[in-house]
Amino acid sequence: MFKASIDIDLLRDSIAALSVIVDEIRLKVSPAGLSVKAVDAANVAMVIFDLKASAFDKFDAKDTELGLDLVKLNDILGIVEKKTLVDMELDTAAQKLHLNFGGLSYTLSLLDPSTIRSEPRVPQLDLPARVVLNGQDLKRAVKAAEKISDHMTLGVSGNVFFMEAKGDTDQVRLEMDANQLIDLKSGEANSLFSLDYLLDIIKPAGKASEVSLSIGCDFPILIQFDIAPAVCHVTFLLAPRIESD
Amino acid sequence: MFKASIDIDLLRDSIAALSVIVDEIRLKVSPAGLSVKAVDAANVAMVIFDLKASAFDKFDAKDTELGLDLVKLNDILGIVEKKTLVDMELDTAAQKLHLNFGGLSYTLSLLDPSTIRSEPRVPQLDLPARVVLNGQDLKRAVKAAEKISDHMTLGVSGNVFFMEAKGDTDQVRLEMDANQLIDLKSGEANSLFSLDYLLDIIKPAGKASEVSLSIGCDFPILIQFDIAPAVCHVTFLLAPRIESD
Amino acid sequence: MFKASIDIDLLRDSIAALSVIVDEIRLKVSPAGLSVKAVDAANVAMVIFDLKASAFDKFDAKDTELGLDLVKLNDILGIVEKKTLVDMELDTAAQKLHLNFGGLSYTLSLLDPSTIRSEPRVPQLDLPARVVLNGQDLKRAVKAAEKISDHMTLGVSGNVFFMEAKGDTDQVRLEMDANQLIDLKSGEANSLFSLDYLLDIIKPAGKASEVSLSIGCDFPILIQFDIAPAVCHVTFLLAPRIESD
Repeated sequence: MFKASIDIDLLRDSIAALSVIVDEIRLKVSPAGLSVKAVDAANVAMVIFDLKASAFDKFDAKDTELGLDLVKLNDILGIVEKKTLVDMELDTAAQKLHLNFGGLSYTLSLLDPSTIRSEPRVPQLDLPARVVLNGQDLKRAVKAAEKISDHMTLGVSGNVFFMEAKGDTDQVRLEMDANQLIDLKSGEANSLFSLDYLLDIIKPAGKASEVSLSIGCDFPILIQFDIAPAVCHVTFLLAPRIESD
Repeated sequence: MFKASIDIDLLRDSIAALSVIVDEIRLKVSPAGLSVKAVDAANVAMVIFDLKASAFDKFDAKDTELGLDLVKLNDILGIVEKKTLVDMELDTAAQKLHLNFGGLSYTLSLLDPSTIRSEPRVPQLDLPARVVLNGQDLKRAVKAAEKISDHMTLGVSGNVFFMEAKGDTDQVRLEMDANQLIDLKSGEANSLFSLDYLLDIIKPAGKASEVSLSIGCDFPILIQFDIAPAVCHVTFLLAPRIESD
Repeated sequence: MFKASIDIDLLRDSIAALSVIVDEIRLKVSPAGLSVKAVDAANVAMVIFDLKASAFDKFDAKDTELGLDLVKLNDILGIVEKKTLVDMELDTAAQKLHLNFGGLSYTLSLLDPSTIRSEPRVPQLDLPARVVLNGQDLKRAVKAAEKISDHMTLGVSGNVFFMEAKGDTDQVRLEMDANQLIDLKSGEANSLFSLDYLLDIIKPAGKASEVSLSIGCDFPILIQFDIAPAVCHVTFLLAPRIESD
């Protein structure tokens, strides 16, 4: 059983963040809220998503699992005007989700969760460095890197966080010291990542006022931020690329 | 003889409505104003368009008929800034229409009206139900239906007007009762229409504050609205599709 | 040696104007400022560009010549927010230009100037007519001409400046008399130009409050305007097309 009402913008932002990684999700529903853990087809990136019951205008649920087609859902929600409230209600017997918004009722057939890849095991990572910065700063550096390369290095050296990309002849680098960052836990860190994934991740992350990056040396990076403060949190885990010169 | 001045926005909206059905028109000019009746190449939809002399800043005309290429006209009017006044004058001998706007003069060659399909006969329809709603509500339902199907049902059941589309697994439905509608004449009505046509028609209809729908059972629908209150009226007549399951 | 700071908008507008003609430039640096003279691959259009030292927030330079890839530069500057200050510094030994903006540092490899076409000789032209008009008026006429032809005539007849394009059946014409122009030096002038080039030139010229056109009979046209008043001036010289009917 699941019955809830939520603001369309928060729902759309949530779907956008999940869509970075997968097109179909196993949505875990519990009285505490909704959650998703998923890994992409290439096993390079993982998303851990948590949307608390308190994020909803109304929320009434028992433990269950729903198979959702994010592409279909995103497509239909694209026509909804901002600020609209979306009502959702699960028809367990028919395995359908009823959505109501702006006078329209939409009935979405659910997928059989067993046809969707199982929840991944989340690895325990002990990453030496951690920086917190504005999502806009992260976005700008990734956008600049895209102009000259298809991968970029993120790292910490002393009290300086840096992002760097090297093209055949050109180079782009952003450096931020402790004063320019919201927070810095210093530690040796230097890892290379695919810009394909970072460009997708900065779409939701670029809107966040605080993005936390946990980084190691040739280790995965944790990119964490709130979609809505205190009630909707997302973590991306992205595997490093090994430099081959 | 035909000489007139009109606001560019009203002219562009008029061309946009006619372009739903045809690319070339026989424009009937009379001292009372301009009018067009046309049917699309597939004989599925008809437009009946009426623009009164009082819609113009200046209007001076005798009875005549002009062959107009709407695509060309729309293209050139696309560069005109909003709120501009467009002056038009017919050169009967040369069969050219002179347009003046924003200091530019544009000379458009007219088409020979006899090369354009004749005015259709408008069928007399006695449709049992009629609803009047805001163009935005109609637009939202058609846009939602497009996401899952290529046709949709419009109907009235008791005091409820409904629009419904069914995809392979999903369904979308909008219901509005007498209180939510601007006006309702109840009557049994239920007809299926192609979304291709409805999507084109809602472009102009979606801007109207009041759209009137006259509906029957497996009968054509009449979609009527003002492009400008009291002076520019348009009626679309759309043939039903017969459901084949 | 070259070290300077400039507003991003002025830098971007300058690159946009130069890009009308060439993708790679020989940038002449002197204590007085920056300048470029270049001709397009087809030898139809020339640009003469001058950006004074006083246009910069800081400017410190000795005479030198830099080879710049405008496409790369434009691409990276596209991500910079409006109103940002861009710092530039030449590394002569490494033949690299360091750009700093919004916390990002970007290192651009310079091209060997000897691989770029030499500065053209600027012909002395004694053109009989000259008109000064608002860039928007020029833009509107060129945009209208594009709808019906691939070339247009510019000329002066008596006290009237005109721009005219003829299609297979249609015609567009803009006339402006001395009262509608900012300035007019009357003289017999009538030349035909390719719209391909004019459409590119009006992108920067359309933003200028005053554009000066010097015109002759079947002679090149000079199109001159300021990108920034008193400190950044650009001249386009465009060869005529010879009418072939």
